[in-house]
Amino acid sequence: MTGSRTGDYRILQEAALRDYLAGLPDIAALLGGKPAAWGITEVGDGNLNLVFIVKGARGGIAVKQALPYVRLVGESWPLPLSRAHYEYLALTRQAQLAPGLVPALLHHNEMLALTVMELLEPHIIMRKGLVAGTRYPRFVDDITTFMARTLFFTSDLALTAAEKKEAIAAFAGNHALCKITEDLIFTDPYRIAEQNRWTAPYLDGVAAALRDDMELHVAISRLKLKFMASPEGLLHGDLHTGSIMVTDSETRVIDPEFAFYGPMGFDVGAVLANLLMAFFASAGHERAPGERHAFESWVLETVDQVWNEFARKFLELWRTDAGGDAYPVSLFAGEKGVARLELERQAYMQRLFTDTVGFAAAKTIRRIFGLAHNIDFELIEDPKRRAISEARAVRLARGMMVEAVAFRTIADVTGAARKLRDWQPELSG
Amino acid sequence: MTGSRTGDYRILQEAALRDYLAGLPDIAALLGGKPAAWGITEVGDGNLNLVFIVKGARGGIAVKQALPYVRLVGESWPLPLSRAHYEYLALTRQAQLAPGLVPALLHHNEMLALTVMELLEPHIIMRKGLVAGTRYPRFVDDITTFMARTLFFTSDLALTAAEKKEAIAAFAGNHALCKITEDLIFTDPYRIAEQNRWTAPYLDGVAAALRDDMELHVAISRLKLKFMASPEGLLHGDLHTGSIMVTDSETRVIDPEFAFYGPMGFDVGAVLANLLMAFFASAGHERAPGERHAFESWVLETVDQVWNEFARKFLELWRTDAGGDAYPVSLFAGEKGVARLELERQAYMQRLFTDTVGFAAAKTIRRIFGLAHNIDFELIEDPKRRAISEARAVRLARGMMVEAVAFRTIADVTGAARKLRDWQPELSG
Repeated sequence: MTGSRTGDYRILQEAALRDYLAGLPDIAALLGGKPAAWGITEVGDGNLNLVFIVKGARGGIAVKQALPYVRLVGESWPLPLSRAHYEYLALTRQAQLAPGLVPALLHHNEMLALTVMELLEPHIIMRKGLVAGTRYPRFVDDITTFMARTLFFTSDLALTAAEKKEAIAAFAGNHALCKITEDLIFTDPYRIAEQNRWTAPYLDGVAAALRDDMELHVAISRLKLKFMASPEGLLHGDLHTGSIMVTDSETRVIDPEFAFYGPMGFDVGAVLANLLMAFFASAGHERAPGERHAFESWVLETVDQVWNEFARKFLELWRTDAGGDAYPVSLFAGEKGVARLELERQAYMQRLFTDTVGFAAAKTIRRIFGLAHNIDFELIEDPKRRAISEARAVRLARGMMVEAVAFRTIADVTGAARKLRDWQPELSG
Repeated sequence: MTGSRTGDYRILQEAALRDYLAGLPDIAALLGGKPAAWGITEVGDGNLNLVFIVKGARGGIAVKQALPYVRLVGESWPLPLSRAHYEYLALTRQAQLAPGLVPALLHHNEMLALTVMELLEPHIIMRKGLVAGTRYPRFVDDITTFMARTLFFTSDLALTAAEKKEAIAAFAGNHALCKITEDLIFTDPYRIAEQNRWTAPYLDGVAAALRDDMELHVAISRLKLKFMASPEGLLHGDLHTGSIMVTDSETRVIDPEFAFYGPMGFDVGAVLANLLMAFFASAGHERAPGERHAFESWVLETVDQVWNEFARKFLELWRTDAGGDAYPVSLFAGEKGVARLELERQAYMQRLFTDTVGFAAAKTIRRIFGLAHNIDFELIEDPKRRAISEARAVRLARGMMVEAVAFRTIADVTGAARKLRDWQPELSG
């Protein structure tokens, strides 16, 4: 990888980008042929950045450049360019810990907030595949390896306290991105906020009920505090199915610009929530009753397996790779000690599961009442059908958030989801 | 205050210190008279630093210089000088938040790891007063103001998430001091460690039982993880009665070199633990049965009042000064919301109380089986009497750590302590 800090920030549109890349010998060689012949296409469909695909005679690359504002909203909502640096830091760490599960990094320029990565082809954004009803056989194994390894090896179970404090400090400056999460996920959906939207008028009553539900407000506030002040491990921070690119045989986690040290359940909950939303949205995409039954079964099995495999891998790492300052093995020597520590590991995972259930609920509600929605629901054209799917997801999420401890296993979650598959909510309007 | 970063580090003994202070016009004026006539006495009785009292014709000062090693152990145990910088940072913040409750800062030189403070006279170290059976009428009000204000105003209840993250990062480099706590409080007393010591042979059996007590090892490990990864607020980090100087009418908290962002219960628990140890040690200091009864009653009343007043003041600050990102008031509008938030405040304090009980237990056990003991017990000359007092304290501490949630109120703690006042432990040897 080549790196640079030189040059002032400027937005690189097609011509400037071509010149910039032509000046990077490794990149130019990888692309091949004459720079003038490179095909450059802007493909960014995210909320924040410019993304270009560049193709030459020999190969292709992806180029991501941060804009000094939120792309979705415009220049009225400034956002620091430093997020590109934190994304680069996180991507580097994730590549070490979960090799092959993130895009290869080819070049980074901190001043330009620009990163060049391998072109993922023929990968597609997983969310699009889920909307189409596609199953991904590699997904469980890959995403659980990614989460177990990136979370375990950045935790107090694997790091010394000194390493952990330095690592937390290295990401402390990414607070503007955390603030987006704090506002859009943990606050706005529960109060009147200009940027909120939902499938009106059908969900008007549900939205009003959420704003009036003080048990829910306590629960979301506890989760928010945990998000702000529980630096358990290095989070991706935005691990939904739009941040995962897939083929039948490969999985790549992209876009870790929200990375910071936070509670592990936030990442795990994000994956589960987005699968559960794919499940509830599925009914809205079927053209004939039961048409997507096998897909829906696969989604719920995947939810079960994501938690169970994540927990199994995380526990196994704890047994084999515990080099951190937490739970020192010297305090758990002998047969009795080993057995007691194993019990405590199970208890630790149960606490993490409770967190995960709560965060999954938070990630669901924000996609239905907050600023940023997802195509799982948005592509259901009939707003009434969409509202029905959304109301089912919200009903589950409300229970998961307020009574997270009542969900003892992931089967409790998927069982509750299955029961809501054909539930008919009362709609407004 | 004057400040400086110039000059290489060197240990300033009497002559060099005199020259250095003579070069600081404000300090020299404060002392008054000719530098040659200043009286300079080294009085450091702590574990880590040099401390000088300097007196001139007009006034006096205290000078603290960090040594590049642990004074108690010697050059074989190096310790970064940067701790003086973190102490300075903490002292500055504490002075803003709790004016009049920390010594006034007169000069700081980061390179020399040297700080000049007001001379506290006729204050004495509170622990010495407690050994002598002295009661301090100002203590409850002052220490609870100090804790409530320094902890509340550095928490997510008072700071934005961005401010909080920057503040955590500013103290992240003080990890060598945190490591002392992690090892000496949260690990070594529960395993065979060279630096452990206890009142042998009488406590040999109790020490062995602690090393074999896996429920206790789980409990101390959970507390250690909380200490390492729960940056709730800016802790003093070493808030025992040897870090508090008192007169009948004044209280000053000194020596915050262990400062970092950690769990609030660690500071509150430190105060309670050291009062409880003063209570249990008292029987060992009486020359006639019941001689110190009134003092002992005062100590337990003080324990009750320290928690209750701390909780009252912290809650009041939350009601009046909540400018932080946690528990946004916009989610708790209206009569129902205000009432629900108040309930949640009580629940938050109950969780903090449980933490406090556990940390108090950890602070007790380390003083009886770890490296650093305290004069409350050490000045009991008869080792058997000392061991009896210590065993009572350990019995309470073991219960507090393993069943922290069973102690619902501070009266549960002081009630249990009172019952153990005359308990006769089985001793070894």
